[in-house]
Amino acid sequence: MKQAIPLFAQLTFHEQATIMGSSRIPELTQGDLTIPRLGTSKIQSPLNLSNTRGDGRGDFVPANSRIRYQIHTLPGTAHQDLELEQAGPRERIFFHPENTTAAIVTCGGLCPGLNNVVRSIFHELKHNYRVPRILGIHNGYAGLNPEQGRPPSQLTDDDVVEIHKLGGVILGTSRGPQDAAVIVKFLQREKIDILFCVGGDGTLRGAHAVSQEIARRDLKISVAGIPKTIDNDIPFVYRTFGFSTALEEAQQALRCAHAEANSAVNGVGLVKLMGRHAGFITAYAALASQDANFVLVPEIDFPLEGPDGLLVSLQQRLERRNHAVIAVAEGAGQHLFDSDLDHFDASGNPKFRDIGPFLKLRIERHFQQQKIPISVKYIDPSYLIRSVPANAQDRLLSNQMARFAVHAAMAGNTDVLIGHWNNCFVHVPIGTAVRTSKCMEVEGDLWTSVLLSTGQPRWPATPKS
Amino acid sequence: MKQAIPLFAQLTFHEQATIMGSSRIPELTQGDLTIPRLGTSKIQSPLNLSNTRGDGRGDFVPANSRIRYQIHTLPGTAHQDLELEQAGPRERIFFHPENTTAAIVTCGGLCPGLNNVVRSIFHELKHNYRVPRILGIHNGYAGLNPEQGRPPSQLTDDDVVEIHKLGGVILGTSRGPQDAAVIVKFLQREKIDILFCVGGDGTLRGAHAVSQEIARRDLKISVAGIPKTIDNDIPFVYRTFGFSTALEEAQQALRCAHAEANSAVNGVGLVKLMGRHAGFITAYAALASQDANFVLVPEIDFPLEGPDGLLVSLQQRLERRNHAVIAVAEGAGQHLFDSDLDHFDASGNPKFRDIGPFLKLRIERHFQQQKIPISVKYIDPSYLIRSVPANAQDRLLSNQMARFAVHAAMAGNTDVLIGHWNNCFVHVPIGTAVRTSKCMEVEGDLWTSVLLSTGQPRWPATPKS
Amino acid sequence: MKQAIPLFAQLTFHEQATIMGSSRIPELTQGDLTIPRLGTSKIQSPLNLSNTRGDGRGDFVPANSRIRYQIHTLPGTAHQDLELEQAGPRERIFFHPENTTAAIVTCGGLCPGLNNVVRSIFHELKHNYRVPRILGIHNGYAGLNPEQGRPPSQLTDDDVVEIHKLGGVILGTSRGPQDAAVIVKFLQREKIDILFCVGGDGTLRGAHAVSQEIARRDLKISVAGIPKTIDNDIPFVYRTFGFSTALEEAQQALRCAHAEANSAVNGVGLVKLMGRHAGFITAYAALASQDANFVLVPEIDFPLEGPDGLLVSLQQRLERRNHAVIAVAEGAGQHLFDSDLDHFDASGNPKFRDIGPFLKLRIERHFQQQKIPISVKYIDPSYLIRSVPANAQDRLLSNQMARFAVHAAMAGNTDVLIGHWNNCFVHVPIGTAVRTSKCMEVEGDLWTSVLLSTGQPRWPATPKS
Amino acid sequence: MKQAIPLFAQLTFHEQATIMGSSRIPELTQGDLTIPRLGTSKIQSPLNLSNTRGDGRGDFVPANSRIRYQIHTLPGTAHQDLELEQAGPRERIFFHPENTTAAIVTCGGLCPGLNNVVRSIFHELKHNYRVPRILGIHNGYAGLNPEQGRPPSQLTDDDVVEIHKLGGVILGTSRGPQDAAVIVKFLQREKIDILFCVGGDGTLRGAHAVSQEIARRDLKISVAGIPKTIDNDIPFVYRTFGFSTALEEAQQALRCAHAEANSAVNGVGLVKLMGRHAGFITAYAALASQDANFVLVPEIDFPLEGPDGLLVSLQQRLERRNHAVIAVAEGAGQHLFDSDLDHFDASGNPKFRDIGPFLKLRIERHFQQQKIPISVKYIDPSYLIRSVPANAQDRLLSNQMARFAVHAAMAGNTDVLIGHWNNCFVHVPIGTAVRTSKCMEVEGDLWTSVLLSTGQPRWPATPKS
Repeated sequence: MKQAIPLFAQLTFHEQATIMGSSRIPELTQGDLTIPRLGTSKIQSPLNLSNTRGDGRGDFVPANSRIRYQIHTLPGTAHQDLELEQAGPRERIFFHPENTTAAIVTCGGLCPGLNNVVRSIFHELKHNYRVPRILGIHNGYAGLNPEQGRPPSQLTDDDVVEIHKLGGVILGTSRGPQDAAVIVKFLQREKIDILFCVGGDGTLRGAHAVSQEIARRDLKISVAGIPKTIDNDIPFVYRTFGFSTALEEAQQALRCAHAEANSAVNGVGLVKLMGRHAGFITAYAALASQDANFVLVPEIDFPLEGPDGLLVSLQQRLERRNHAVIAVAEGAGQHLFDSDLDHFDASGNPKFRDIGPFLKLRIERHFQQQKIPISVKYIDPSYLIRSVPANAQDRLLSNQMARFAVHAAMAGNTDVLIGHWNNCFVHVPIGTAVRTSKCMEVEGDLWTSVLLSTGQPRWPATPKS
Repeated sequence: MKQAIPLFAQLTFHEQATIMGSSRIPELTQGDLTIPRLGTSKIQSPLNLSNTRGDGRGDFVPANSRIRYQIHTLPGTAHQDLELEQAGPRERIFFHPENTTAAIVTCGGLCPGLNNVVRSIFHELKHNYRVPRILGIHNGYAGLNPEQGRPPSQLTDDDVVEIHKLGGVILGTSRGPQDAAVIVKFLQREKIDILFCVGGDGTLRGAHAVSQEIARRDLKISVAGIPKTIDNDIPFVYRTFGFSTALEEAQQALRCAHAEANSAVNGVGLVKLMGRHAGFITAYAALASQDANFVLVPEIDFPLEGPDGLLVSLQQRLERRNHAVIAVAEGAGQHLFDSDLDHFDASGNPKFRDIGPFLKLRIERHFQQQKIPISVKYIDPSYLIRSVPANAQDRLLSNQMARFAVHAAMAGNTDVLIGHWNNCFVHVPIGTAVRTSKCMEVEGDLWTSVLLSTGQPRWPATPKS
Repeated sequence: MKQAIPLFAQLTFHEQATIMGSSRIPELTQGDLTIPRLGTSKIQSPLNLSNTRGDGRGDFVPANSRIRYQIHTLPGTAHQDLELEQAGPRERIFFHPENTTAAIVTCGGLCPGLNNVVRSIFHELKHNYRVPRILGIHNGYAGLNPEQGRPPSQLTDDDVVEIHKLGGVILGTSRGPQDAAVIVKFLQREKIDILFCVGGDGTLRGAHAVSQEIARRDLKISVAGIPKTIDNDIPFVYRTFGFSTALEEAQQALRCAHAEANSAVNGVGLVKLMGRHAGFITAYAALASQDANFVLVPEIDFPLEGPDGLLVSLQQRLERRNHAVIAVAEGAGQHLFDSDLDHFDASGNPKFRDIGPFLKLRIERHFQQQKIPISVKYIDPSYLIRSVPANAQDRLLSNQMARFAVHAAMAGNTDVLIGHWNNCFVHVPIGTAVRTSKCMEVEGDLWTSVLLSTGQPRWPATPKS
Repeated sequence: MKQAIPLFAQLTFHEQATIMGSSRIPELTQGDLTIPRLGTSKIQSPLNLSNTRGDGRGDFVPANSRIRYQIHTLPGTAHQDLELEQAGPRERIFFHPENTTAAIVTCGGLCPGLNNVVRSIFHELKHNYRVPRILGIHNGYAGLNPEQGRPPSQLTDDDVVEIHKLGGVILGTSRGPQDAAVIVKFLQREKIDILFCVGGDGTLRGAHAVSQEIARRDLKISVAGIPKTIDNDIPFVYRTFGFSTALEEAQQALRCAHAEANSAVNGVGLVKLMGRHAGFITAYAALASQDANFVLVPEIDFPLEGPDGLLVSLQQRLERRNHAVIAVAEGAGQHLFDSDLDHFDASGNPKFRDIGPFLKLRIERHFQQQKIPISVKYIDPSYLIRSVPANAQDRLLSNQMARFAVHAAMAGNTDVLIGHWNNCFVHVPIGTAVRTSKCMEVEGDLWTSVLLSTGQPRWPATPKS
């Protein structure tokens, strides 16, 4: 019988300690955290590691090593010790390296560090495990459908030698799913033993479907996921690669908005940042730059009109200081479109759901009605943020994520995502990870800090369906 | 009776999961982790927080909330559940904000983020707790000795408005201790209730001594430490502010060394990086840049001569590839000076203990003897690394460290260091933190990755006294 | 009698030598280059300079020192030796420094280096000439109209101490003219002797009108212009401050566009850059980055449709290489709106004259019709380019422009613009400078280089009215 | 009969107009500016250019097009109209492209833009002139001596595709000359028709010697020089590629020195910058950063001791402001070694002629004697400056320099350097260029500005031998 833990209730105070805010976590059982395996791992790992402490050689991670899921304790509060499987190189692996073929597919939007992930998967497989055949799938899942994409290329050292210094991704990427059966057929035809899927929520759902199809056919193909989301919204992954780089660029955009706003008469710098369901990047960039006066995130349905709404608050700020900077996540303010929709587009064209131009229009209209001159500078830096090379931090993180994914797959795990929990790398069942998405805890330290540093009104949190 | 836990033996596999490597941790008891307090905290915090989950207001952290010290589990291995006190705003505080005077002192070498710490301490005290009088101590502990330093200045909003964008530190800094009795007398005379000490190992020893002197006199003065070490060598602090920025600059120096080496005939780029007792910055910069071929750290006493020594290994590399990059931590290779000392300086001049020029000389001499032309480019970027403004990551981290220190002190904790453990901010007794220093685990994931990426020989670890 | 020189015809070969391309230059006479003066300059300059070569003191520039306008010669071609007045500190000046009041006004859009200009004008006046009263006009010409703007502030050393490291401009700026009579009345009321106008074409027209109004009233007020145009389109000014910084940022945007395009299936990176009448920034950024495949500038009316048009050329590029980067100046393609206008907006809404979204739409529609999948990433980085701090080059240039403007005004020149010609700083009558604007010579070295590096079709130049 | 022009005397006022300072120019005759040619240029250029203005095609530059050497005029002063040959593509060329072999050699220290020069020479030759065989000489002139260097490689498009984004130089470099006869023999053996020499003073002397040896043997081999000097000390070249990038990095080092100095008790930041004979980079970096308080250059023999010397001036500054930044060019203060030599090194070891550590020692000793505590932070960023990738400005400049060198050589010019004069690209006889070197005019605008911005004493200029 499943034993559910109402973690939500217990987390009141926990999140305040974390550097990167936190998310609502669904009820879990230990079974939700069990990784599927392809079979018994009997082969000695070729890695030059040992199980002996103190011999100067790096150590294997035992297959039964675990990381505690919950590490906060409070007297008088019940805990259940769920555990996550620790990631790392195993002494016994499942695949004979010399007979193994691996493939890498990268999906969705660009993210700093993608090339680093590709390069590190390649290096770990080729030079450490001595896997001879590593394929690059072109342009996302489309490359796994022979009717849509180009055939895969066998990667060589020359292909990846300098790519860790470049933005973008050499394999190319695309959006959209493919039929799991088609993909599995492709994997069989190409004799692929391991498929590394680098992507976000949609990509991971696809990887899970492929894993299930593989299981249905009782094939011995491992599917390993590496979380890629510039929004940082994947559960069990404290921080994804690319996030640190994105933060750096995003705060730079806020600084430019400040310069623009501050140099104009009633200047308003309006910056749209990434974040469909989670305001992490917007909130952190605002905290890091200290340049934003209003931070609008998907977790908070801010009111536009009314005495406490954004427009009046902005007007008060301008009366007081003559300039303002607004950082808005792309997923914020979607509630405003329902009521306002017909004012803007009778056909319900989704392009009008772009909160950036919408806010610009509404702000300009408000001040026009008030007969207050205003100068709104709208900045949408998203492509300039996500396409730059990874910074040192993200280079390290993408390198680690990639190597741990190789260890996981070579050991015979499948349907497995590399997570990052309590500062440890762990294995997470992809099926569990895609059950929900991570967003910012509005009563946690991050959002509290944002409110204090901006002085903006404390609007109520968005009700979650 | 104290129950000691041989943590070292249990950590074989644990460290491999961490992103930032790990350190040897001393035996601990729960008593070692208990924070001294000045008395009962009876005053209602002025912060606009609540204890109610779901009311949209940020939450206080209960005073008895704890973070587990050890979060790895392995069947068949004993654990003891030591716990660290969670940092965060308390509902009940010790000091009446309106009557409180706080002072900030910054000691030791520069580090990116110092100004951010000063600014955030000031802001949290002034605007959130409404503490009216916040003093800036000039130039480190010397500023707490009336015979040596300038008198303190009362900080204002104007003083700190833009400093988070600048390197250095507005308060100035200096090295060296002062007599604890003198300092305590100064604190009394200036009516200082809280002293924030921002610094590394030496600074914290001083802070501990001051705390003890305060206790001896039974005064109600809180001493709160904020760890500042660009070497990242303070225990219980996973990563210090400034480290991420330093890494970015350090890898840039390695890239330059690579360009120099690669453009010369038998070019050798030799870069000395920070790290007296710990090779973190050198190892991470090497991993991030992928440009280093030899990484020399204090944790490994590399041999210079002999068939497996650095010189012959370097020669082999040059024969194979014509160029090489060496990253050396300033604390590496100190064992070489004992034997070689009289060859270089009869008077034992300490300037020859500088490993950078020493290595340059020895490399040049070796190849001269071998009649192999060589071009060594020596780069010492340390001041250029530590004096730059903090990047986004370090801005966030220094902001958090500062605010948690304010919460800790206002609540009446003393002799307390803000630590960062398992991704949570915690309170650590300063006395416990200064009992040891953190260094890199040579059998952990970090060093294993360095060895694999450089291909350098696996020299044995330095025996620890 | 005026003697006109058809310079245009002679310039065939001249422009190819210049690093920054060139412009069509209007017919000129020597009279067009004569600077109006307020009267005889009788006062000894307080600057510590001399007229003696070799005494180790810097030298004054004689008032009759000239720079040749035309420096190319070709046997068999007639020349006329027009000369420009050399800028520099004069031994005899017009204004008594101790009784002088100066004011600085900054107009139009932001440009890297604006703060540097303000700071250098202030420093040169205050510390070198010892002028006691220097006013900062707020938010452009509006600040010279008491009914519209805030009253001016007297600048102090503290106001400008760190501003050379910041983007934006502390004085604020705005667009739009003010009545010359109102401004002159304001100058009289505030007892302003010198007005420094920092701005582009419109600003300079305003400055010229003010100068004429001053002359009409026979007042002794000097008006000195400092050219500010991120488009680099002011005649007699080879390169304006901010241009080098803008180039650096613009090429970064092209690099991001390349990463985006190259990572997608038939990816098209479309970047809109500054340049209303002149394609300098677009052409130079394309040359510097080598990442653009199509460069669209105002000087060339590129065809959209047809076998040689942009759409077919783009399609051919994608068939060949699968990705493309287009750099388009904001002023390019305006001819397309006349014919296409009613297809897009019956009311002639000016927002459709934005070439960026227009091109994105047309490209997407074309490939949709061709049933070719395509992914267009549109990037508009303009605010992110113009609001950053000046780079070293632009710091130097803005510093020089400012100091030469101070020298010019203190010596009694008026209606004078600081120009940069043949690598020398010169005085140009503002009335002459605003008679035309500078654009790129399509048969010169710059555009030829762009064509060769992109391989794009050689479309005919835009006929000039 | 040669007619010498005492240009020096006439330049009193001229230099003050130039943005990049100026140099003492030797007496010249028109004959000194005549470029040697290999023979008549009869072959039609394959470039798609025309001689017709207005046809939309780029234009050739006539072979007899000239640029005036002197462009300043002053009534009552005699001028002689020397002229420089304008660089650019010629309609008639000397070499049959399809039968031509070219070689590129890069010598001396690294400089940002070297790879860009190599790439642009390659591209212009290969894709515009259609030259089939382009050799890369490895590691400088040593690669032209079969007994010392590796044999040359034939360059391909793949070799250069991304190198314009990287520091260093793919061909490698080295210092030191080779026998001209050996080189010419090598050129003959390898059937090289054009040798592009990229380097500074020494390299150009070598190129001149090779040209003379070629002429002696009456061979038809062209030698074209591209000036490369991070010091910017080559006459007839206003600014060399790499200088703008170096300035950016150098001012960053000064900013770090400021942060270090300002954060210490009596902190002194001491930065050694490049510049053996010319202080351009030091002076410009100081002006751009506004962070230096003392600028020491080779052109000024500053006194160390005495009431007006550096030490006392520094002491006064510290008494006044508690911190100071000193920027010293590596060639400054060499006069101090003569008298002090035996105090430091009896054997006259050249390592003691390093002004950086020498100054550090002397400053520390002085304040020790005065019993004033002081903290000197010495920064030597040279390798970090010269090995970075070129910025946008230097990418453009190196691209142009390279293309003009190709045009010059293809047209049959030899012993020719690409110069940059009055903002035009010109041909300069290498023999004339190496007769002297360029340094800063101490009575010009640049140095005057440095004196005013630092407030340092006006020490007399170094007497020139």
